[in-house]
Amino acid sequence: MQGMIMDEPLLLSTLLWRTERLYHDKTIVTRLGHDRYHSYTYAECGQRVRRLANALTTLGVEQGDRVATLAWNHYRHFETYYAVPGMGATLHTVNLRLFEEQQAYTLNHAGSKVLILDVDQLSLAEKLVEIGIPGIESFVIMTDGPLPETTLSPVYHYEELLAAASPAFEFPELDERSAAAICFTSATTGNPKGVVYSHRALVLQSMALNMQNQLGIREQEIWMAISPMFHANAWCVPHAALLAGATLVLPGVHPLEADYIETIRDQRVTGMNAAVTVGSMMRDYLLDGHDDVDTSSLQRMWLGGQAPPRGLMEWWGKNRGVTVFTGYGMTESSPQVCFYSAKSSLSDLDEESVWRRRTSGGLPIPLMRVKIVDEAGEELPWDGNVVGTIMIRSPYTVNGYLDDPRSATAVIDGWFDTGDLGCIDPDGYVTVKDRAKDLIKSGGEWISSIDLENALMTHPHVREATVVSVPHEKWLERPVACVVLNHSTTVTGAELSDFLQERFAKWWIPDAFLFLADVPKTSMGKFNKKLIRELIAEGGLQP
Amino acid sequence: MQGMIMDEPLLLSTLLWRTERLYHDKTIVTRLGHDRYHSYTYAECGQRVRRLANALTTLGVEQGDRVATLAWNHYRHFETYYAVPGMGATLHTVNLRLFEEQQAYTLNHAGSKVLILDVDQLSLAEKLVEIGIPGIESFVIMTDGPLPETTLSPVYHYEELLAAASPAFEFPELDERSAAAICFTSATTGNPKGVVYSHRALVLQSMALNMQNQLGIREQEIWMAISPMFHANAWCVPHAALLAGATLVLPGVHPLEADYIETIRDQRVTGMNAAVTVGSMMRDYLLDGHDDVDTSSLQRMWLGGQAPPRGLMEWWGKNRGVTVFTGYGMTESSPQVCFYSAKSSLSDLDEESVWRRRTSGGLPIPLMRVKIVDEAGEELPWDGNVVGTIMIRSPYTVNGYLDDPRSATAVIDGWFDTGDLGCIDPDGYVTVKDRAKDLIKSGGEWISSIDLENALMTHPHVREATVVSVPHEKWLERPVACVVLNHSTTVTGAELSDFLQERFAKWWIPDAFLFLADVPKTSMGKFNKKLIRELIAEGGLQP
Ligand SMILES: Nc1ncnc2c1ncn2[C@@H]1O[C@H](COP(=O)(O)OP(=O)(O)OP(=O)(O)O)[C@@H](O)[C@H]1O
Ligand SMILES: Nc1ncnc2c1ncn2[C@@H]1O[C@H](COP(=O)(O)OP(=O)(O)OP(=O)(O)O)[C@@H](O)[C@H]1O
Ligand SMILES: [Mg+2]
Ligand SMILES: [Mg+2]
Repeated sequence: MQGMIMDEPLLLSTLLWRTERLYHDKTIVTRLGHDRYHSYTYAECGQRVRRLANALTTLGVEQGDRVATLAWNHYRHFETYYAVPGMGATLHTVNLRLFEEQQAYTLNHAGSKVLILDVDQLSLAEKLVEIGIPGIESFVIMTDGPLPETTLSPVYHYEELLAAASPAFEFPELDERSAAAICFTSATTGNPKGVVYSHRALVLQSMALNMQNQLGIREQEIWMAISPMFHANAWCVPHAALLAGATLVLPGVHPLEADYIETIRDQRVTGMNAAVTVGSMMRDYLLDGHDDVDTSSLQRMWLGGQAPPRGLMEWWGKNRGVTVFTGYGMTESSPQVCFYSAKSSLSDLDEESVWRRRTSGGLPIPLMRVKIVDEAGEELPWDGNVVGTIMIRSPYTVNGYLDDPRSATAVIDGWFDTGDLGCIDPDGYVTVKDRAKDLIKSGGEWISSIDLENALMTHPHVREATVVSVPHEKWLERPVACVVLNHSTTVTGAELSDFLQERFAKWWIPDAFLFLADVPKTSMGKFNKKLIRELIAEGGLQP
Repeated sequence: MQGMIMDEPLLLSTLLWRTERLYHDKTIVTRLGHDRYHSYTYAECGQRVRRLANALTTLGVEQGDRVATLAWNHYRHFETYYAVPGMGATLHTVNLRLFEEQQAYTLNHAGSKVLILDVDQLSLAEKLVEIGIPGIESFVIMTDGPLPETTLSPVYHYEELLAAASPAFEFPELDERSAAAICFTSATTGNPKGVVYSHRALVLQSMALNMQNQLGIREQEIWMAISPMFHANAWCVPHAALLAGATLVLPGVHPLEADYIETIRDQRVTGMNAAVTVGSMMRDYLLDGHDDVDTSSLQRMWLGGQAPPRGLMEWWGKNRGVTVFTGYGMTESSPQVCFYSAKSSLSDLDEESVWRRRTSGGLPIPLMRVKIVDEAGEELPWDGNVVGTIMIRSPYTVNGYLDDPRSATAVIDGWFDTGDLGCIDPDGYVTVKDRAKDLIKSGGEWISSIDLENALMTHPHVREATVVSVPHEKWLERPVACVVLNHSTTVTGAELSDFLQERFAKWWIPDAFLFLADVPKTSMGKFNKKLIRELIAEGGLQP
């Protein structure tokens, strides 16, 4: 027996409908530079979204086509987030941090017809043309100034296109499973993998994010979306902010720590989301002679991409009255899998136990199912100790990658293999212990590099730490730590070893401590463990 | 181009999955009587839900079948809310407040196979068998005691069935559009209309309800669901509470004001939802010699079904520190259409303007689209003044009624005709001004003026009769009849009252009978109820 309910599809244009009507006078604010902001209302935004849809139609974009962007977080990029999916095309946000060859690969692989770019990405785009992106039929430049000299052709001025276009556009009633957006995840080796989000996935993820005990952006908030709009769907935050009718603050072109901090002060930002590194760079900026900047409006900070170190969370809480919280996510899950919330039962726990949960990946978000499995694929218990591969399943998780043979191994019996190893405690808090590819197995037993890293980073003199496995004759693998110290501090490997022995079994203690000026990072700013292992193997890093 | 996302259906069993794992130790508390409560965890609930699914399978219930209940708000009824849809059957919650003939009609029309009833509904069920409900193959009695004497056959004891059943049951992966629940709406004239909710509709509505700036039940809350589980899907609150992992408090069998108030005190209830009348009866109870009862835990109260009077809202705020809020809903929309939330812009408004919004139906909830139209179906502006028919559209709104010719007029061009007249202000606050059909809502329950009129006009001495609602302190609205007698006949109000009592419940009988020379009519020749109500209010019509 079927329900007798309207077959209304879950579409991004429906979210826009509501926000235009209920929150038309709320604003989207973009930082343009020191003391300079662009601000307009959701009503104006909606008008421009429709103009853009008409303009893109003029450029030959049809339902089912792809439109790409090379852009930072600002109102024009936000407009593409609604115009392109709204008209039934698919938005491919090219990751600015990938290598050029990879960017060209993603453009060709997604098959984009139009490339919309920030003017500061012009020479990059010209280079991509040289590398070869033959599918791109038109280039559209987003700039406040006139159209610059360029070899790109044919090239259009974003504002001129919009000025010439009608603000009347009827969003089509699409299939909710049609593709709204494409993001590529960098992939350790080989080409980036294309993740294709449906309208349904993005609407459901936005709703789940905005629920109580989740991110829960409120209309009353002034939310700064720092995590890039070119990566992992900007964590779905632009959609969640629009859905809430919150004031959305975008940090603009090529932002630095000073931009984030000044924007908080200038716009009285109440909440923000960013990579963990950004949260620590913002702290360092404040400590480094900017202690007097007023950030008192800021109440909460979502740091993601990895588990934020407790010390960083405590610093923001104690010094700036900011609650730092986290979640566990990935490009393949739109992107959230888990989100931290303090259950009422935590009030019975001691401080350490609460911190263990606060620094975990959090609880599976609504509609998400999570399990951990052993190597045979058997489900493991949620006892907070046993570690297994994290498998996930939800209406916003991928079932494969865009035209990619790696799809074959992505999903096993309906569950997506995250490639992460972790444990789940009896309350459902999921803790990522390691990535399968970064796993350290010493004498047949697990060692969690993430646990060691987090512990090292609580040491007062340690700024950054990463732990990798190196081959060992007897134990097969042993951990080695790479450590970056704070300026003008010294500490020896023996001291760090002692420090760790207070909390870990002896066989967990790294065999060596390498003191580096900087930890090599991937294009996305994560520790590049693969490279570090290679450097150590080649003798390029010495204790 | 299609998204590459898992085809995970939106199912009630997925909500249960998450709550069983994340909130297994949170409780569902049912009031049994003075100082007596039943309490168990969501984990125990989940086990019993599976046992019930197995037990129903034993009774011959298969996917696609219907199972009916005649029950109050308690944990066993809650179990049917998950077992029946979970196994792929459809739960028909028979409305305890319908007339017996209507109840029999709904059972036959829905085609239920099994009837699960509270032991206090036994004689009703026996009567329904007499009237004729031939489709029911088994009766299951929910009681703490032994199986009573009854003519029902075959009859089973709920607890014995569960005890004999296995707690292992794999919920099938259903089509999310399959029917999860059926509720009947009373209908002005003719038979009740069947509303068939899909899993998709209930999951989406629960998510929308639990979002920030909506109802937003939190895990930390202790929520009492007073609105009956046999009416309008209990406002989706049981699902929203489970989804949140909140403590759910159910007031039990045949609750009265004292039960609600004592349960708040005993269970430290923090939030509740009920019909407006219940909110005013609870106030009257407190005023009537129970002022010393501690209700200090209660923070918020959702009163719905009609607009709560400002005086009532103020009373709870001033005297008990309770924030009263409301929403606009109907059986046909799972049931919410709008929900009140205080936009940040309200802080700029004067008190009167804020109250106008607080007593409105609220803002369209996420995924809901609302418009008002004139008689020609043309959309009217959102100017806060012009009144039109309220039309709605969402993935949780009906597209028709179960096997009912009235489906033909329910939906116009994809929009459901609510039958309500209202205006929408520029901020999106929807205010219901009148019901297109002139029903009377007394104590939260409908009284059909047309039914009363039709009955009165069967009286030999009555020429014309119309029944309108007048404001009433306790019941909020009460019916008053305006009667025109045939020439040279006399009859008293008492006689007409006796006449009506032969066919209607006592609370349907009009409070007064006004004998007029003529009933004011509109230009179209219909009774001008608006004018009549105005005349009564001005004292222009006297009993
Ligand atoms: N809270 C967290 N705790 C620990 N690890 C996290 C957390 N959040 C995210 N991660 C890590 O980040 C990963 C997701 O990152 P993202 O999708 O941005 O790219 P990536 O996985 O680093 O790149 P690629 O898959 O292309 O190699 C997760 O699979 C997990 O390993
Ligand atoms: N906040 C509100 N303000 C005004 N009226 C409201 C409000 N909420 C609900 N209503 C009224 O209640 C109606 C929905 O009630 P419900 O579905 O419980 O019964 P009713 O059954 O509509 O009766 P029928 O069977 O004749 O349709 C709405 O259509 C509206 O008229
Ligand atoms: Mg990854
Ligand atoms: Mg109705």
